[in-house]
Amino acid sequence: MVCEEVKMKAQILKMLREADGYISGQQLCEKFGVSRTAVWKVIRQLQEEGYEVEAVRNKGYRIIDSPDVMTKEELESLMDTKWAGKNIVYYDEVDSTNLRIKQLGDEGAVEGTLAVADRQTAGRGRRGRSWDSPAGESISMSILLRPQITPNQAPMLTLVMACSVAEGIMDCKDVCGEQQIQIKWPNDIIIHGKKLVGILTEMSTQIDYINHVTVGVGINVNLTDFPEEIRERATSLRLECGHKVKRAPLIAAIMKRLEENYALFMETGDLSQLMEKYSELLVNKDRDVMILGAKEQYVAHALGINKTGELIVRKEDGTIEEVYAGEVSVRGVYGYV
Amino acid sequence: MVCEEVKMKAQILKMLREADGYISGQQLCEKFGVSRTAVWKVIRQLQEEGYEVEAVRNKGYRIIDSPDVMTKEELESLMDTKWAGKNIVYYDEVDSTNLRIKQLGDEGAVEGTLAVADRQTAGRGRRGRSWDSPAGESISMSILLRPQITPNQAPMLTLVMACSVAEGIMDCKDVCGEQQIQIKWPNDIIIHGKKLVGILTEMSTQIDYINHVTVGVGINVNLTDFPEEIRERATSLRLECGHKVKRAPLIAAIMKRLEENYALFMETGDLSQLMEKYSELLVNKDRDVMILGAKEQYVAHALGINKTGELIVRKEDGTIEEVYAGEVSVRGVYGYV
Repeated sequence: MVCEEVKMKAQILKMLREADGYISGQQLCEKFGVSRTAVWKVIRQLQEEGYEVEAVRNKGYRIIDSPDVMTKEELESLMDTKWAGKNIVYYDEVDSTNLRIKQLGDEGAVEGTLAVADRQTAGRGRRGRSWDSPAGESISMSILLRPQITPNQAPMLTLVMACSVAEGIMDCKDVCGEQQIQIKWPNDIIIHGKKLVGILTEMSTQIDYINHVTVGVGINVNLTDFPEEIRERATSLRLECGHKVKRAPLIAAIMKRLEENYALFMETGDLSQLMEKYSELLVNKDRDVMILGAKEQYVAHALGINKTGELIVRKEDGTIEEVYAGEVSVRGVYGYV
Repeated sequence: MVCEEVKMKAQILKMLREADGYISGQQLCEKFGVSRTAVWKVIRQLQEEGYEVEAVRNKGYRIIDSPDVMTKEELESLMDTKWAGKNIVYYDEVDSTNLRIKQLGDEGAVEGTLAVADRQTAGRGRRGRSWDSPAGESISMSILLRPQITPNQAPMLTLVMACSVAEGIMDCKDVCGEQQIQIKWPNDIIIHGKKLVGILTEMSTQIDYINHVTVGVGINVNLTDFPEEIRERATSLRLECGHKVKRAPLIAAIMKRLEENYALFMETGDLSQLMEKYSELLVNKDRDVMILGAKEQYVAHALGINKTGELIVRKEDGTIEEVYAGEVSVRGVYGYV
């Protein structure tokens, strides 16, 4: 399919979605300056891909249901942002979306370029751990950022993304209704006490200068089974919400939140405008946590985060400490959260 | 040429270089288990590439002179290291050796992998500036490091490389004799007050974890002309030493020093074992420098570096300050150094 046709398909999809009722074939022909046959060809393609498009004589077309597809056109038709996720690179299968975005970043791709894959063959978590993402069941995506900040400010972007993912999921009301999505500091997304999303932030820097930042997000959407060793603490939206979930609208909702939250972050260069809502989403808030440092481990009571993203805790002797994600990790006193 | 032949060629070159006098064809045949014709074929190839190899009946082969070639075989035959520069990727022309090494690093290449290019078409300096590297006249190389240190220790690697380049050049006695090669803090290499070498350190990191570090080195070797705007402060080995210089032995000498200096760095995770010799090479030492910060500029007297690579300066009021390369740059009070 030539580029123009892909664009028209994405735009027709977007119009059908946004329409209040039917859109006539005539309207579509005029908008794109093409024949009725050309419009009908696009509608047929959409139907073949699993979209339920109703065609009624003298009324026109109406979209009834969309399949769970993550094509470039589907994503483009849903994206409601200025720059975040506007340039989409889609892969059916790829080694790792973070690797692809890092390379695209090196090659000069625009800020907001988003790599989305149906399946990753070499997905990675923090510190070189692997991250599973089977075809058709998960979201693997990575976005390219080019913030004019110093390298030591960049870790805060992980928290900006955590906030955006939690809010984006909750914005999709048909996913899990009013159920609370939470954040386990600094950047795991939690539902019912189990891990739903992992975020991996990587950056390419010079001594005092950021070339680019890659924020990767892996979401367990429709997985129904996990490997033995993580079954206790990992889950998916489908398992927790009881039905299959469409991935493309989730991605679009997260990009919309990211664009807003990133602007708030860049205004101040820190989390001062985000720390309040982040702390409200924090599963650890007002709970005892085990602080796991390189040299010591201790139990403390988590209070929230400060404006640089450190976790504020009250130690047992009453003193307040601010702990940095680069130096410690936390877990619940009796389990994962 | 198949891989085995390339290896044999590199090894024959190495044997010829290391031999004290002639090496008989018989010796070479036995060592590699090949025919006299096969050995002769390799010798002829070397002669065609510009090596002067003398062949004397009943004595054997002797190498008289090498051309200025930077082929993989030439580099391999000269490399006297355990890991630094042992895995060589050579390009006649490439966008940027730093870009290639970053990609090889992402793909899992071994520590010490060295990319060398005869010409870069998109060479870069610090903060996105460009760096010119015309064919046949300069060295463009980048090495992959995988140190188990934290991201905030990595900028010190730039100083480790600066030290290694200065020492490596001075080790090649036929280049500039006893002339002093110096360092302009933190990482320019200077001869006669002009810039000879630029170093660009980049890294790929997670919050608290280094994926890999790329240290790129650009050396003006045989350039005889510079663009108007940098002519005052840039120079080449050829211009300063009065003759053409062979590049491959220089690269090998630098790799040898780097391997030693990197080991000293990794022992302590800082420059405590290198700061003394670095300070001795420092062109700024015991001179007045202009400290150029984001908010203020002032003149101070440079004393040397501390173990984290900061420049120690005495301000005009007598107080001692340690300035960080990420926050300030320096230049001479009346010029470049």
